[in-house]
Amino acid sequence: MKASQFFISTFKEAPADAEVVSHKLMMRAGLIKRLGAGIYNYMPMGLRVIRKVEAIVREEMNRAGAVEITMPVVQPAELWQETGRFEKMGPELLRIQDRHGRDFVIQPTSEEVVTDIARQELRSHKQLPKNLYQIQTKFRDERRPRFGLMRGREFTMKDAYSFDKSRDAAQVSYQNMRQAYQQIFDRFGLRYRAVRADSGAIGGDLSEEFQVIAATGEDAIVYCPDSDYAANLEKAEALAPTGTRPAASLPMSQVATPGKSTCPDVAELLGVPLSTTVKSLVLATDELDDKGIVVKSQVWLLLLRGDHDMNEIKVGKVPGLDAGFRFATQAEIESHFGCKPGYLGPLNLLQPVNLVVDRDVAIMADWICGANAEGFHMIGVNWGRDLPEPSVVADLRNVVAGDLSPDGKGQLAIERGIEVGHVFYLGDKYSKAMNATFLAENGKPAFFEMGCYGIGITRLPAAAIEQNHDERGIIWPDAIAPFTVVLCPIGMARSEAVQASASALYDALLALGVDVILDDRDERLGAMLADWELIGVPHRVVISDRGLKEGTVEYQHRRDTEATKVAQDGILAHLKGRLGL
Amino acid sequence: MKASQFFISTFKEAPADAEVVSHKLMMRAGLIKRLGAGIYNYMPMGLRVIRKVEAIVREEMNRAGAVEITMPVVQPAELWQETGRFEKMGPELLRIQDRHGRDFVIQPTSEEVVTDIARQELRSHKQLPKNLYQIQTKFRDERRPRFGLMRGREFTMKDAYSFDKSRDAAQVSYQNMRQAYQQIFDRFGLRYRAVRADSGAIGGDLSEEFQVIAATGEDAIVYCPDSDYAANLEKAEALAPTGTRPAASLPMSQVATPGKSTCPDVAELLGVPLSTTVKSLVLATDELDDKGIVVKSQVWLLLLRGDHDMNEIKVGKVPGLDAGFRFATQAEIESHFGCKPGYLGPLNLLQPVNLVVDRDVAIMADWICGANAEGFHMIGVNWGRDLPEPSVVADLRNVVAGDLSPDGKGQLAIERGIEVGHVFYLGDKYSKAMNATFLAENGKPAFFEMGCYGIGITRLPAAAIEQNHDERGIIWPDAIAPFTVVLCPIGMARSEAVQASASALYDALLALGVDVILDDRDERLGAMLADWELIGVPHRVVISDRGLKEGTVEYQHRRDTEATKVAQDGILAHLKGRLGL
Repeated sequence: MKASQFFISTFKEAPADAEVVSHKLMMRAGLIKRLGAGIYNYMPMGLRVIRKVEAIVREEMNRAGAVEITMPVVQPAELWQETGRFEKMGPELLRIQDRHGRDFVIQPTSEEVVTDIARQELRSHKQLPKNLYQIQTKFRDERRPRFGLMRGREFTMKDAYSFDKSRDAAQVSYQNMRQAYQQIFDRFGLRYRAVRADSGAIGGDLSEEFQVIAATGEDAIVYCPDSDYAANLEKAEALAPTGTRPAASLPMSQVATPGKSTCPDVAELLGVPLSTTVKSLVLATDELDDKGIVVKSQVWLLLLRGDHDMNEIKVGKVPGLDAGFRFATQAEIESHFGCKPGYLGPLNLLQPVNLVVDRDVAIMADWICGANAEGFHMIGVNWGRDLPEPSVVADLRNVVAGDLSPDGKGQLAIERGIEVGHVFYLGDKYSKAMNATFLAENGKPAFFEMGCYGIGITRLPAAAIEQNHDERGIIWPDAIAPFTVVLCPIGMARSEAVQASASALYDALLALGVDVILDDRDERLGAMLADWELIGVPHRVVISDRGLKEGTVEYQHRRDTEATKVAQDGILAHLKGRLGL
Repeated sequence: MKASQFFISTFKEAPADAEVVSHKLMMRAGLIKRLGAGIYNYMPMGLRVIRKVEAIVREEMNRAGAVEITMPVVQPAELWQETGRFEKMGPELLRIQDRHGRDFVIQPTSEEVVTDIARQELRSHKQLPKNLYQIQTKFRDERRPRFGLMRGREFTMKDAYSFDKSRDAAQVSYQNMRQAYQQIFDRFGLRYRAVRADSGAIGGDLSEEFQVIAATGEDAIVYCPDSDYAANLEKAEALAPTGTRPAASLPMSQVATPGKSTCPDVAELLGVPLSTTVKSLVLATDELDDKGIVVKSQVWLLLLRGDHDMNEIKVGKVPGLDAGFRFATQAEIESHFGCKPGYLGPLNLLQPVNLVVDRDVAIMADWICGANAEGFHMIGVNWGRDLPEPSVVADLRNVVAGDLSPDGKGQLAIERGIEVGHVFYLGDKYSKAMNATFLAENGKPAFFEMGCYGIGITRLPAAAIEQNHDERGIIWPDAIAPFTVVLCPIGMARSEAVQASASALYDALLALGVDVILDDRDERLGAMLADWELIGVPHRVVISDRGLKEGTVEYQHRRDTEATKVAQDGILAHLKGRLGL
């Protein structure tokens, strides 16, 4: 490709609404162009990256035996009503009516349609397993679209769906996809982790996220540097504490802590470690009648160590809280604790509450908690003496760095990631809802065992940039760079030698199948190099009259701090080496 | 590809709603699957065809210097309000509101968005010409979607838009695209014609349709077998008649023609050629006030020869009818003619009408027309004697086979076609409406001169089938076949020789880059061959034990009536010859 025939559009400044670096750099490098909130044009430079991502995904999906189809963007509501998602999904599901007033949705995903295909097309166990995938436009009407392609409304996703005759067979399909994903992410040339994720109501361990590691990632990833344990923070188990509770050594007393309504404030005031304080979280559950009207509510008090954070997924597995919970209202808190939040604790309650104690709190002695009196805390609190031994003890907290790994092989570390892939065992959730069956070996109809597997095609370039950039711009891995090599001839219009050398190298690289761009725009050197450093093409060759006179050109990888002089007649071999050709 | 790992789903019967052969065969061969009215899943076999069409289009668009982008499916209404199309377009434009109540459309085409990109990105004449294209999902909410992918609601289109600094430059871009289209359609391997089309209000000749020739096509195409003249019937000019009016030879008289209300009926009753009769068509025009209320209507009488059909485009160019017209109401007809339709004519009117006479009628003598009295016609009517010489004479009719070609090089013929491409000079229609300018050489802002260029990606396979099929199924051209070669081993599971021979040929073809499928499903021969004839793979090799014993396999092209025995060790060379490798 010659730059003069392409479309290069770079900007010095990012728009004001760009908050994260990938959004800023994608806008500045002209990869995307905003059309509306969360809706972007994919410009020529950006589309090249997206097409390379698609090609790698398609190749590996095909290699893994999946078969490509395309399901419509606009889908009839009927199928979505069969699974109940038409009603259940929130406003992020874009609903429309056609000219005849019939309901449709813009697909955010395609479980319903693919299950409808399967129940018509896959009639016998002999046709299984089957994995159908598409690379298709999706729409989710996010309340607050932001971060460019990271959380857009219209985006492209690769979504695959496997159909199997049994749970065991489904596990094979799942592992097959998991392997394909590793292959795909290896080929992208990004640092990533496959981490265990919560599989919600379906249960089991068959849910993993593929996270691209980046300091700016939305997700916290827990991993063990000494083993292959890795999990989403939501999912990561805390091991049961190994210590035992020390004996009580202090008497319980009330201390004035005016204006100190958080554990860190109290610990600082009292000059004690944060880990000796206990925080009180007040939740509530509602009991509904047939008509969905609340007939009774219960209040719950959760105790966690002051230096620990609540994990909502784990709390949601506590018996009594597993049908859904909410934070308690101010009125509920005051009627049970006789006090405003900030000074709450398990002592001196006005009305009984359901107490759930984190395992680490259950082995504490001489701890500190709110006194249920504004401006006061209790110190030297002890189980069995000042209040009864806790009867409900559970894992309620997020793990923290330094916790023991659940596999017993070391201590956990935490880093941040961006979810770009997800493999998920669905079971018969959709096949049951849609009565999707096949004839099993025993001659009877059986529900499909399903899995679903997504990759955020248009999110991936954003994640790649979050991981790979510097103050000058993007640094693409070779596999998904818009161009692999850029040739920058200086003063091409005025020097026949430069022109001849650049053209010869360009032709030689094209003949090798290298994705090369020749910058024939005749820009000033500074502007030219700034453009390509912003755009992030990994390999650059500068060709100048001065260099040619001494028989050299300059090679620089985008990660190099300086250019390397290479003999003019050795540059092709040098590039072949760098490109692994 | 091995059939066992692919997705093959054929049906003996087509669904009842499939009216045209391409729809029937695409459903039966499992290329597409209906999801809703005019909405289809592209199944694996069909998607392979679509991807090949896309790849050819993309390659030739790139070669022609166009640059690929992707514009969103869901587009903000604001831009569509700038051109007025948000209001003006009928219900085929699917309109939606997002969760915040903002208006959006599902793109049926992208002139607004691409012009918005151009006005922001193309600031100087130095950046021109530029041609941006996309291959993207479109939606048009057709009132009566039908014929499968021929007239669906959701479909894929390649739409390109050129931006130029002058009308002359725009013509160069137009011709460049026209050439690329010829290249593309040549590569598809289909019989087609580029025909002149009406360019509506914009005028000029710069509008051509690419029509795939098929007896079942919706469009009539006029062409001259002895020259390269070709036009859509709407557009094709009738040459001015070369003859002169004969002298009147009959007196005018009224004859009873009870129940004979059409020209053919009258001609038959009277035993005269249809070309001696004249048909009367009554139109009306309305004059509106500021508020759009009709303040005055006029009635128009058009006279055409009984064997000719009215051409609405041509009628719409007659002064007085060029701002829009409608057919007259029953009341308007009776108040002016004193008679019901079927017996109308230009004589004995109750009120004056605007008379427009086709050129061929203006040179007739002794003609026949309605008497404006039910059950009666006039015969022996003559201009200048029985009614004044016509003052408004125009080309009002469709050409017919045998008319002289407008280029003077022979007689016109008519065949039918399916429009799958359109190249169109837009001028400054959109750039003016959206104030899209660039800085011209004189330093002043100027409006872009635009062109737009479409190809119906998902319609093309349907058109290809309409042109290429027989009673057994589809016959694909090599370039867009889902697979180029199918290997059909008989009894592969029971014969090592068959298996070895099939595998060797399969591997050899794969190594050559041939898109080959090996049918390893172990189906009965009859069922296997019926499947592949229905699906329409152009080249087939049958490998059997019996053949191998005498050292042969059987080759058959899908168009051949019989298989050809080919030496086993010569089949690869034979295939290479057939495939042009």
